Amino acid sequence: MTELITQLEAIVGSANVLNPEQVAQRAKHFWDPSPMVALALVRPVDTNEVSQVLKICSEHKQPVVTHGGVTGLVDGEKSNHKEIILSLERMQSIESIDPVNRTMTVQAGCVLQTVHEAATDAGLFYGLDLGARGSCTIGGNISTNAGGLSVLRYGMTREQILGLEVVLADGTILSSLNKMIKNNAGYDLKQLFIGSEGTLGVVTRAVLRLRPDTPTCNTAIVAFDNFDQVTATLDHITRTLNTNLNAFEILWNDFYHLSTNPDINGSTRAPLANDSFAYAIIEARGANEASDQQLFIQAMEAAIENALIADAVIAKSESERAEIWNIRENVDLTLRHQPLFIYDISLPINHMQTYLDEVRSTLQKDWPEVIVYAYGHLADNNLHVTIAPQPKNYINDPQQQPVKIQAFNDTQRVWYEQCNKTVFEPLAKLGGSISAEHGIGLLKKQYLKYSRTPEEIRVMQLLKKSLDPHNLLNPGKVC
Amino acid sequence: MTELITQLEAIVGSANVLNPEQVAQRAKHFWDPSPMVALALVRPVDTNEVSQVLKICSEHKQPVVTHGGVTGLVDGEKSNHKEIILSLERMQSIESIDPVNRTMTVQAGCVLQTVHEAATDAGLFYGLDLGARGSCTIGGNISTNAGGLSVLRYGMTREQILGLEVVLADGTILSSLNKMIKNNAGYDLKQLFIGSEGTLGVVTRAVLRLRPDTPTCNTAIVAFDNFDQVTATLDHITRTLNTNLNAFEILWNDFYHLSTNPDINGSTRAPLANDSFAYAIIEARGANEASDQQLFIQAMEAAIENALIADAVIAKSESERAEIWNIRENVDLTLRHQPLFIYDISLPINHMQTYLDEVRSTLQKDWPEVIVYAYGHLADNNLHVTIAPQPKNYINDPQQQPVKIQAFNDTQRVWYEQCNKTVFEPLAKLGGSISAEHGIGLLKKQYLKYSRTPEEIRVMQLLKKSLDPHNLLNPGKVC
Repeated sequence: MTELITQLEAIVGSANVLNPEQVAQRAKHFWDPSPMVALALVRPVDTNEVSQVLKICSEHKQPVVTHGGVTGLVDGEKSNHKEIILSLERMQSIESIDPVNRTMTVQAGCVLQTVHEAATDAGLFYGLDLGARGSCTIGGNISTNAGGLSVLRYGMTREQILGLEVVLADGTILSSLNKMIKNNAGYDLKQLFIGSEGTLGVVTRAVLRLRPDTPTCNTAIVAFDNFDQVTATLDHITRTLNTNLNAFEILWNDFYHLSTNPDINGSTRAPLANDSFAYAIIEARGANEASDQQLFIQAMEAAIENALIADAVIAKSESERAEIWNIRENVDLTLRHQPLFIYDISLPINHMQTYLDEVRSTLQKDWPEVIVYAYGHLADNNLHVTIAPQPKNYINDPQQQPVKIQAFNDTQRVWYEQCNKTVFEPLAKLGGSISAEHGIGLLKKQYLKYSRTPEEIRVMQLLKKSLDPHNLLNPGKVC
Repeated sequence: MTELITQLEAIVGSANVLNPEQVAQRAKHFWDPSPMVALALVRPVDTNEVSQVLKICSEHKQPVVTHGGVTGLVDGEKSNHKEIILSLERMQSIESIDPVNRTMTVQAGCVLQTVHEAATDAGLFYGLDLGARGSCTIGGNISTNAGGLSVLRYGMTREQILGLEVVLADGTILSSLNKMIKNNAGYDLKQLFIGSEGTLGVVTRAVLRLRPDTPTCNTAIVAFDNFDQVTATLDHITRTLNTNLNAFEILWNDFYHLSTNPDINGSTRAPLANDSFAYAIIEARGANEASDQQLFIQAMEAAIENALIADAVIAKSESERAEIWNIRENVDLTLRHQPLFIYDISLPINHMQTYLDEVRSTLQKDWPEVIVYAYGHLADNNLHVTIAPQPKNYINDPQQQPVKIQAFNDTQRVWYEQCNKTVFEPLAKLGGSISAEHGIGLLKKQYLKYSRTPEEIRVMQLLKKSLDPHNLLNPGKVC
């Protein structure tokens, strides 16, 4: 073991190989302050060093867990005391921006927000955005095929990636730094690594697709009386605003109520009365101030006239816009429930209401007080569902340190598994997914069968075995 | 061998196993009337039959070449007398359309135009379109990751596919008929099969993503004095029309000149004088008639005022629009050159002009009269380049039967290989691709090294070996 560490130090420098005590100084996770665990943490500075590190680890049959911003929600970043953490924190460079071809080449450790800012400085726009933008990295986004707030318009991370450089388990550098929208010269290998959660290779660099900026932004929050109004409004809005539509985020009443409840510390003002069935934040972006605003208002007016929505507030300023989005982004308010069971599912839109009704009524048999918060990217089929079986256990304190939300006691663990079954089983019947955008990691691995067939799982395992025959990259995760 | 045929007949019925003589009644290719060659042609009716056929072929170690519409341009469909053709011509069903989730589930043999019509009937739109729409199939589009005319707005075929069903070489049915925009439950296996040209599995069904219809369409043809104007106009137009922009097709002078030359049989009227440096067809689609037209005209006027374009004609009717597109789509006029060398390349936009200049000047050393036609999807980095080394050999006859364009005599074959080198070598330096949207097949396999690294090609071969260990599916193609 000492030999391995010595070899790693020779590659990256001894200051960049942290021992277990140094590793333990770090928080395990964005939401979990308990100490990080590993045999060592290695911090290469470039692709060449990553390649050498993986080559040495391969020779020693040493398992490696790659870390980006450590903001994942499925224990995909989890490591034990026998594993080495490969942290890309020193690989944060933006290497180039090409304004004509609209590409940005970055190292994988680059933080998402840094990419946004650099794109904006170049008069362009990067189409991926999510709540963890200040911490998550491009490499992590790629490894998890992150989704977020603009998927409706720009697609998932997969659709933002033109080129990719990956280091394989044996240290081979697989450089596919394509900069073009079209390239059908052989298999598109990058697709294999996008969304494979660090199990098939380590992403080291990427070519991102940039878009023309959208200087205008029109945002509204609307209220619905029933779910039929939700689907009718989505149909209406996508037809009238078409590709300018950037977000259609739903918030069912329980979540809206919590987020705007004046008794809750950290809540937001309610722009619409809190007794509606559900709410949606609708946002369009474009390039022409006058016509974009006019079309947006017309679309909202038509929705009210045709009784597709019960009420609406259109943001008249950037601060009103921020206030509307705060209602949606104030997810931390739910985290104060003890315990809280968090899900990120997808399913056909037309089944969403009956699905939620079924889940709620099943859970009420065991927990009559249960709250099922539901909100999310409805137009992308994606709901975030968080379940508080004992809602009276609410810590109404914004100063409360975040706690590892899945760190349950024995009773709670039994509840969690019971709740998982209740949430996942009906999804299987509906062709839904147990993970819309968070991935599988360790946390959902045992439930993968609800969304994928035995044949699919066997092919996943075959690919893993082919590309990482000694099972060294993020072992035990996904499949 | 008789045993294999008997077993296949037992699966699909004897009427659906064609013998070599029956196979020879068919044209080899869309553009080649010479007889098709195969040991047999098998026509299964559903996924289950495809699975049984492949299982039997696997047991006999029998190579299989899958056929869709046979409109490919890289000999990806080529078969020999020892191979069986698996034709999906009896698998043309549209199984379902889901208007709320905007999906269509089809069998792989369904023709693209049929999908367009069914989408339109449902008030929706399918985002892939290409010249061969009346013959090419969804399975072929998927296997080649087809591009075409709307990639700028909707992406390649890859971005239209939500779910995929594939049969593996051993007959395993891999069913991933996901209907949702977001699904990160494990590796996204469908990505492996999209664009792998039938070498990793046989696509049997797919779930297509549909979009809201875009009832308005504004089209113009514009003229440029130089290439700087082209890139400046692209920047201007994408910023002003943003995601409404549907096409930005460039036509350099030689191609425009041929296509609008009144002396050429089948040519089109020239809406703009034929002495400009280059031309572009610019098209936007949207949902609001008044504002879309106003913004389109404003964008064109601003381009003229700022001297980004030399001249422009905006279509005032559907027939004027069709006339403009005819100039671009009248590619058959170039095919009357004997010989003609056809390329489909991609490269960074800012290098396109110097690249074409270099290719032309190199070719002129051997063929002083050479014509280098260049046109295509500039905004997607994609140019179609067709090279006529002896332009005097032009058959000005629209009744001329199409001939297999790559069927060269010995001298022409030497020329072709020389031309390939001239076209491909500079692409390697520029990070360009030898195949933007047509694929590799057999025709470009030996040149794959110009666009992909040895490590990439090794990983392609590793994937092929893992999924098709006996090399039975479209053997010898791609890598």
